[in-house]
Amino acid sequence: MASSAAAPQAAAPPAAAPATDPKLVRIRAAMARADGGRGIQAFIVPSEDPHMASCVGECDARREFISGFDGSAGTAVVCLDTAALWTDGRYFLQAEAQLGPDWTLMRHGTPNCPEVHEWLAEHLPEGSRVGIDPAVHTVDAAEKLKAKLRAAGKQLVALGSNPVDEAWEGRPAPPEAPLRVHPLEWAGQSVAQKLDGLRRQLAEAGAGALLVTMLDEVAWLFNLRGGDVAYNPVFLSYGVVTADGATLYVDPRKVTPEVAAHLGEAGVVVKEYGALMGDVRGMAAAGTKIWLDPSRVRAAAGIAEMCPGGCSVLTIHTRIRPTPLPSAHTPHPRLAAGCHPPPAVTLAKSVKNDAELAGLREAHLRDGVALTQFLCWVEKEVAGGRVLTEVEIDEELTARRAAQPGFVEPSFPTIAGAGPNGAVIHYRAQPGTCRAVDASTLLLLDSGAQFDCGTTDITRTMHFGSPTPHQKACFTAVLQGHVALDSAVWPEGTPGCAIDVLARTPLWALGLNYRQACCRAAAAWHGTGHGVGAALNVHEGPQSISSRFWNTQPLLERMVCSNEPGYYEDGAFGIRIENLFVVVEAATPFRFAGQPYYTCERLTVCPLQKKMIAVEQLSQKEVAWVDAYHRQVWEALAPRLEGQAEELEWLRQATSPL
Amino acid sequence: MASSAAAPQAAAPPAAAPATDPKLVRIRAAMARADGGRGIQAFIVPSEDPHMASCVGECDARREFISGFDGSAGTAVVCLDTAALWTDGRYFLQAEAQLGPDWTLMRHGTPNCPEVHEWLAEHLPEGSRVGIDPAVHTVDAAEKLKAKLRAAGKQLVALGSNPVDEAWEGRPAPPEAPLRVHPLEWAGQSVAQKLDGLRRQLAEAGAGALLVTMLDEVAWLFNLRGGDVAYNPVFLSYGVVTADGATLYVDPRKVTPEVAAHLGEAGVVVKEYGALMGDVRGMAAAGTKIWLDPSRVRAAAGIAEMCPGGCSVLTIHTRIRPTPLPSAHTPHPRLAAGCHPPPAVTLAKSVKNDAELAGLREAHLRDGVALTQFLCWVEKEVAGGRVLTEVEIDEELTARRAAQPGFVEPSFPTIAGAGPNGAVIHYRAQPGTCRAVDASTLLLLDSGAQFDCGTTDITRTMHFGSPTPHQKACFTAVLQGHVALDSAVWPEGTPGCAIDVLARTPLWALGLNYRQACCRAAAAWHGTGHGVGAALNVHEGPQSISSRFWNTQPLLERMVCSNEPGYYEDGAFGIRIENLFVVVEAATPFRFAGQPYYTCERLTVCPLQKKMIAVEQLSQKEVAWVDAYHRQVWEALAPRLEGQAEELEWLRQATSPL
Repeated sequence: MASSAAAPQAAAPPAAAPATDPKLVRIRAAMARADGGRGIQAFIVPSEDPHMASCVGECDARREFISGFDGSAGTAVVCLDTAALWTDGRYFLQAEAQLGPDWTLMRHGTPNCPEVHEWLAEHLPEGSRVGIDPAVHTVDAAEKLKAKLRAAGKQLVALGSNPVDEAWEGRPAPPEAPLRVHPLEWAGQSVAQKLDGLRRQLAEAGAGALLVTMLDEVAWLFNLRGGDVAYNPVFLSYGVVTADGATLYVDPRKVTPEVAAHLGEAGVVVKEYGALMGDVRGMAAAGTKIWLDPSRVRAAAGIAEMCPGGCSVLTIHTRIRPTPLPSAHTPHPRLAAGCHPPPAVTLAKSVKNDAELAGLREAHLRDGVALTQFLCWVEKEVAGGRVLTEVEIDEELTARRAAQPGFVEPSFPTIAGAGPNGAVIHYRAQPGTCRAVDASTLLLLDSGAQFDCGTTDITRTMHFGSPTPHQKACFTAVLQGHVALDSAVWPEGTPGCAIDVLARTPLWALGLNYRQACCRAAAAWHGTGHGVGAALNVHEGPQSISSRFWNTQPLLERMVCSNEPGYYEDGAFGIRIENLFVVVEAATPFRFAGQPYYTCERLTVCPLQKKMIAVEQLSQKEVAWVDAYHRQVWEALAPRLEGQAEELEWLRQATSPL
Repeated sequence: MASSAAAPQAAAPPAAAPATDPKLVRIRAAMARADGGRGIQAFIVPSEDPHMASCVGECDARREFISGFDGSAGTAVVCLDTAALWTDGRYFLQAEAQLGPDWTLMRHGTPNCPEVHEWLAEHLPEGSRVGIDPAVHTVDAAEKLKAKLRAAGKQLVALGSNPVDEAWEGRPAPPEAPLRVHPLEWAGQSVAQKLDGLRRQLAEAGAGALLVTMLDEVAWLFNLRGGDVAYNPVFLSYGVVTADGATLYVDPRKVTPEVAAHLGEAGVVVKEYGALMGDVRGMAAAGTKIWLDPSRVRAAAGIAEMCPGGCSVLTIHTRIRPTPLPSAHTPHPRLAAGCHPPPAVTLAKSVKNDAELAGLREAHLRDGVALTQFLCWVEKEVAGGRVLTEVEIDEELTARRAAQPGFVEPSFPTIAGAGPNGAVIHYRAQPGTCRAVDASTLLLLDSGAQFDCGTTDITRTMHFGSPTPHQKACFTAVLQGHVALDSAVWPEGTPGCAIDVLARTPLWALGLNYRQACCRAAAAWHGTGHGVGAALNVHEGPQSISSRFWNTQPLLERMVCSNEPGYYEDGAFGIRIENLFVVVEAATPFRFAGQPYYTCERLTVCPLQKKMIAVEQLSQKEVAWVDAYHRQVWEALAPRLEGQAEELEWLRQATSPL
């Protein structure tokens, strides 16, 4: 449709300028009406939703809607005369294909590509007003943007409504899945007990209200689970805790009578999801000190705008009892100032209680049974000459899990990567394009489940024919890293970044390595390990086992974490070995400086494929680790496979000593 | 002498107030005259000297002189009516004993102890003037102090002279040791070549002058060595490099004709040490952009005061070609903003050239010969029933080193800690109080030498009788950590903090650990390893192997570092095993992502005492490491011990396989 330079100039009529995308016409009209008719000259549409959850319902996918670009990272800016989208190198090709002719692609990270604020400063006339929806920008980010725009003679305006929503004809309705009570049997603490603990910390911090915006934190706090977000049993909501009250902001249609009774028992009031912003503004205006982390909390960015002097009521950073750091790990003053301790709820959620741990152990037993049944089946099928697809693998595994009691859903989209697909870290097989799994391919299978009692996440890498010596050497190096981390003992106060290297040295010795991965949903950067929720999100903070040295959160007793080193050979294959573990106190012969020492207690029970192991590469200790782990797997699962002769025999062979 | 509340009030004459220390009377007179007669109401005397070297001549020990307190850390503040000294918990007892009645001890780090600026804000009347000698405060620290005092209605005044010096009758003369040329044979690069490299970076940074204030950096830059500071072959000086010139600020009496010719060849002008401040002020006033690191450089703190608008000429932080960090180690933006890359000279000095490495290798061979002779001697002496003292150990070892060619001096005070003294990390034996070394004690011996060609630093721990099983178990765990770090292979971009844990895990498995140590002289915090100069200071940056995660300086090829895990059992014994190594490229079978991998090449050649090793605790790989190291030691030293039958035989046995 666009004019072509090759067309004969004189003969053809002048090519018409392409018609502006009607979505842009509508949003520009909304921008002209915005802020009580004062209007704005630009509107910023980030990827983020109010809860920092990347997979919230389609109704929050505003940047995707307005720009047409659906990559996971990008920021759209709509001006009256132009529109631009910033994304990074991962998405340049995709954005070029998806953006319409009205859009300019800003290749973030390439030389001379301006930042959004620089571009706005240059592009807009002096005195222009730049709008944001405060619900989707953090307090910190909004404050910085405001200062930068002000320095360029522009004004940041926090709007009361979102122009994208006004321009969005046929916007999907927010999800409506009903809530369910997460029973005390698995929660371990009643809502009243959790509120009591937070209120003590509120009082210590001298704050009047705690604002909880992360969906898994709201779910944890109120012992509720929902179905608004695929794979994560959370629901669109906010929570506010005060000295004498607590409010859950949620669509009241989701509140079943059972849930209403459960909340009523703890004195929790239910209000409309949309009432949060007004209530927060009211508290801020009344001088209530609101306890929030301005680097994470959205939904409050506008308050500073709307309450003169309101800034002061917002800058109470989250405070917790400081974790005593041993002298060997004293943080640098500069770092300590920059890195706030994790919010109270984040930390309380990450340190599991007895009931949560019991639930996680039970979930892993159920998962182990399903995996044993699945692995026994898939080996037999492939040995019988059947060629399976990655999608069939996913379906069969999910069916086995679904047959277990308390199954809710997978805890993330199964990654069944055959051959080269295994090297694509977040690969998801699609019907039609997925690869075959047969006796010639190495299969990386990363999957997990949400059970009523807990969450699982496991990766196994296997070959149903004859792996090459190179594949075995690489697998064995990954295994050695996994074993080294699993066997580690560390003193109180040690952060995950200190021990990340243990999982890497066997690979490094060969000149191999693996990169960091980023799970946007939980803002959990990890390389070797991430936190895991208890019947909650499969990725959670604040801990991380990675080489991101600014995360000095110690690995605390009762935290649950993954141990998942890997090796990804582009275009060839991927290897990852992942178990979950819980941090437990280690029985060391000494306790230097009176400190406790910690180690890993494995939760995941599923055999490692022995044919992938180059035994001659292992030390005696490593051989003993594999045999001990397989004994643990056998003892855990065999009782649950009584009467399933074929599976039991498969497990016996799979867990026999090396 | 002080008045006593118990004394009968009427009968006795009022007790005379103790006479004020005459030093304080004199400094207060100088304070009244200061700043052209305008006077100051308080003067701050930090421990630091202009070069961040802790052991500069006594003439710079101003805080010790004025307060009487000679601990390594403390800040004195003299007001017209009082005087106070801040120090930390290590020194409370010592300060109580050393401070006279005119002084108030401020117990830094205890609850309710104010910071210096808080105390000044409280103590001084509005409008007071607080003086500093800008030569001994960093630019950053002075700026912060100024802002804080201003907020409290006080003014910071950078003085042109130091009131302590005016009050210091009989102030020691500055050291006068003559300079010597560090020959090209060991320096590897001429002064002209080094200046060329820096000028290219100056031009890239858009700066007009580079200010070098660290003594070892001046010595490195001008290929000179001196004798002003014990153990460190440096000399009181500053250096300035401009696009077309270079100036060495040093006492001209130290410049021998040979040194003058050497400097003249490279176009270096010599000026009086004291002329630096005036020249820097002149450059700043003329608008020259001076390249310095405001967090480290002293001597320029006053410029901002003296040149209106002068601040802008000082804030060019040091910039170097950024070390390309692989994606696995991308620094966090917040960290990257906080941590500047090391100054150009610091980095150039830390990455050794071929000649410097050859010199270091030769120094270690000479050192190994001296140590072999010493160890052979001491074993024989103790076996013969002789009881040696720690001081005799030091003297004999130093004598053996001094007999080697090119010996200059020890590279630091020998730490010969017998039994419990071994657990005192910076122990120094003193005649009269030192312990005996006999067949019943474990001896920790940490020592080093300055040779013309290079610097050494080695720790061995040994028993001349029968070590206990516990001592052997601890020694062996330390050895395992040493071996793990020495054997490590890591990809480009890996900082020392990432691999520190390798030296600790064998200890952690037993519930043991060791703390960080701080070498003030080089501001080099280290736990497991520190940088080492080439015929220069035994502690240098910017690299560090420690759990100080904010130091993300990668371990670069050709950096020299120590590997010195330990275990210190209070009141019982200390164990440390220390070798130096140089970072070399590793011959890995693969190069993931095209990155080079690095490993350690050992420089230190001296046997480890085999009787301390619990062989059954070691893996096969660890046994092989010990045997291979001993083979290396034998092959390196045996040729130099030709004709010394006793030593040769001792070495043969000491290095035979486990």
